[in-house]
Amino acid sequence: MRTLEWDFNRNELRMIDQRLLPARFEINTYQDYREVGTAIRDMVVRGAPAIGAAAGYGMALAACYSGANSLPDLKADLHLAADVLKVARPTAVNLGWALQCMLAVIDAQSGSVDELRQRTLDEAERIADEDVEINHRMARFGAELIQDGDTIIHHCNTGALAVVDWGTALGVIRQAHADGKHIKVLVDETRPRLQGSRLTAWELQQYGIPYEIICDGAAGYFLHTGQAQKVFFGADRVAANGDVANKVGSYMLALAAHANNVPVYSVFPISSVDLRLANGDLIPIEERNEDEVLGIQFHGEPVAPQESHARNPAFDVTPHHLFTGLVTEKGIVYPPFQVNLPRLVMQH
Amino acid sequence: MRTLEWDFNRNELRMIDQRLLPARFEINTYQDYREVGTAIRDMVVRGAPAIGAAAGYGMALAACYSGANSLPDLKADLHLAADVLKVARPTAVNLGWALQCMLAVIDAQSGSVDELRQRTLDEAERIADEDVEINHRMARFGAELIQDGDTIIHHCNTGALAVVDWGTALGVIRQAHADGKHIKVLVDETRPRLQGSRLTAWELQQYGIPYEIICDGAAGYFLHTGQAQKVFFGADRVAANGDVANKVGSYMLALAAHANNVPVYSVFPISSVDLRLANGDLIPIEERNEDEVLGIQFHGEPVAPQESHARNPAFDVTPHHLFTGLVTEKGIVYPPFQVNLPRLVMQH
Repeated sequence: MRTLEWDFNRNELRMIDQRLLPARFEINTYQDYREVGTAIRDMVVRGAPAIGAAAGYGMALAACYSGANSLPDLKADLHLAADVLKVARPTAVNLGWALQCMLAVIDAQSGSVDELRQRTLDEAERIADEDVEINHRMARFGAELIQDGDTIIHHCNTGALAVVDWGTALGVIRQAHADGKHIKVLVDETRPRLQGSRLTAWELQQYGIPYEIICDGAAGYFLHTGQAQKVFFGADRVAANGDVANKVGSYMLALAAHANNVPVYSVFPISSVDLRLANGDLIPIEERNEDEVLGIQFHGEPVAPQESHARNPAFDVTPHHLFTGLVTEKGIVYPPFQVNLPRLVMQH
Repeated sequence: MRTLEWDFNRNELRMIDQRLLPARFEINTYQDYREVGTAIRDMVVRGAPAIGAAAGYGMALAACYSGANSLPDLKADLHLAADVLKVARPTAVNLGWALQCMLAVIDAQSGSVDELRQRTLDEAERIADEDVEINHRMARFGAELIQDGDTIIHHCNTGALAVVDWGTALGVIRQAHADGKHIKVLVDETRPRLQGSRLTAWELQQYGIPYEIICDGAAGYFLHTGQAQKVFFGADRVAANGDVANKVGSYMLALAAHANNVPVYSVFPISSVDLRLANGDLIPIEERNEDEVLGIQFHGEPVAPQESHARNPAFDVTPHHLFTGLVTEKGIVYPPFQVNLPRLVMQH
């Protein structure tokens, strides 16, 4: 199944509960769009493209279960739903982008209430289907960058679980593997929520791609000692100049790769680019609950002294000069990014 | 009490079991030097200066409990003990340095068997006492580098628990606090063994120094956004040119600080300098058991898929050009480190 998908028999959204992996594989079902907002915030679903698709389906649920009898009333309900969904998480721009796509279709609709309900679901389906297609296109472009024998350091999870299906950065790695290249992945465990060791390792195991888990702080050692040839990660929001906001730790990984002349690539759909923002320092960075940092156990015991507090920025910004290239569904962007990225985004 | 100390009533070594902190405070006692070697390997005691002192006391135990009746036999036993203790951990040079100090005294001894036993314990005591004195000297030099209002990022544990008493990098921070400066520490949790959140947070709480725990990968965010003014960490072995081997993750932290013009200091006793090694790439890097990476729990569940493997280098090397200064008990060394560090070490 896809990470998230519409159940046409029951008119509900089904999503893999990613908080439970790899210990348990459970599917949650949603009929209330507000619960979809909560699921995004609580990270049942995560990954910028998957969040976008979830927001689209959230709108489809709002349309499906609204009690409105007139077109204006239904449109008003849907704008309200968009407002609720939009604030679920602040950093990934795909959330806002998907809602804009949905509202553009909704606002343009002039038929019956039932027609608007159908159009809303159709648009959510279109966003999800297009995401899968975009992923395969990015994967084919990106796989050309990977050589037979490469060891690749990867941060967070950017696989099928981060999107509707296939993956962004991990999609590139899957494609290189599918093309017959012998590769290995050093999986950053990705504190605090450990999406690397929980989700990426779980995916790689299923795909039969060799991997080893490393602590985030160990990447520099492998890069300096020549044990890694490429670094790949995703993006939650990309500024016009190519600065990339991604899972916290990406910036330090990119710095370490750059210092050791190891190429660094970010892989993302054009929908992750926010041309309104001139540079990455303008991207809002979500700070999440300190329990994500403090709540692990070591040898079965709590880790930090009880009265401790933590800071927990969920993302950081990698400045564009650290990237070798940016992989999108329209091709790979090379420096100067501040010229070439906006040009590619505007291109039809 | 000290992190480790000799019990003159029972002729045994007492050491805080650092694996259990902060959940439990327990003291282990040792009469068998081989168990001291195991305790060093299993990290009951850790931190380069503390390991050195533990090795000294291990030799004292070997002398105390050897059945040898002649001076040559006792000396032979002690050389055997040194061989056993030396291989407990490979990266920190203080281990080898302390054993050399011990053997120099032992080899030079010409009196009775009991006199040699006493001289061996005296030398172990001297090493431990001198470590405390050295720490206070480093702290006074280093505290001058800290301004009122500074937020300092600190990696691993370099406090009283890493030495016999007081601390190296954390000793500098304690001194600045004792001098009345208002400072805050961002404590790198320091995966995999979490010495930051387990030990440094525990120490800072006792000293009343404000702190917040962060994930290692988040340091870049705080450095880039101007929320940290200094970076301090310790050293496990320092090459002649000033390259510093320290707990894994130190290198990426130093890179991130350097990229954002935040000063980086390593604090260590001269006994951590290994002039035989021209540069840091020659320092042996210990790779520890993968369970340290894989064995944490998140929400009470194991993290990685069962069949996963991990790589676990315990240290990495920070090249000297990333440091602003190196703090020793003989003063602060500034660039060019490859000239000034050996000069300071050789100075009497």
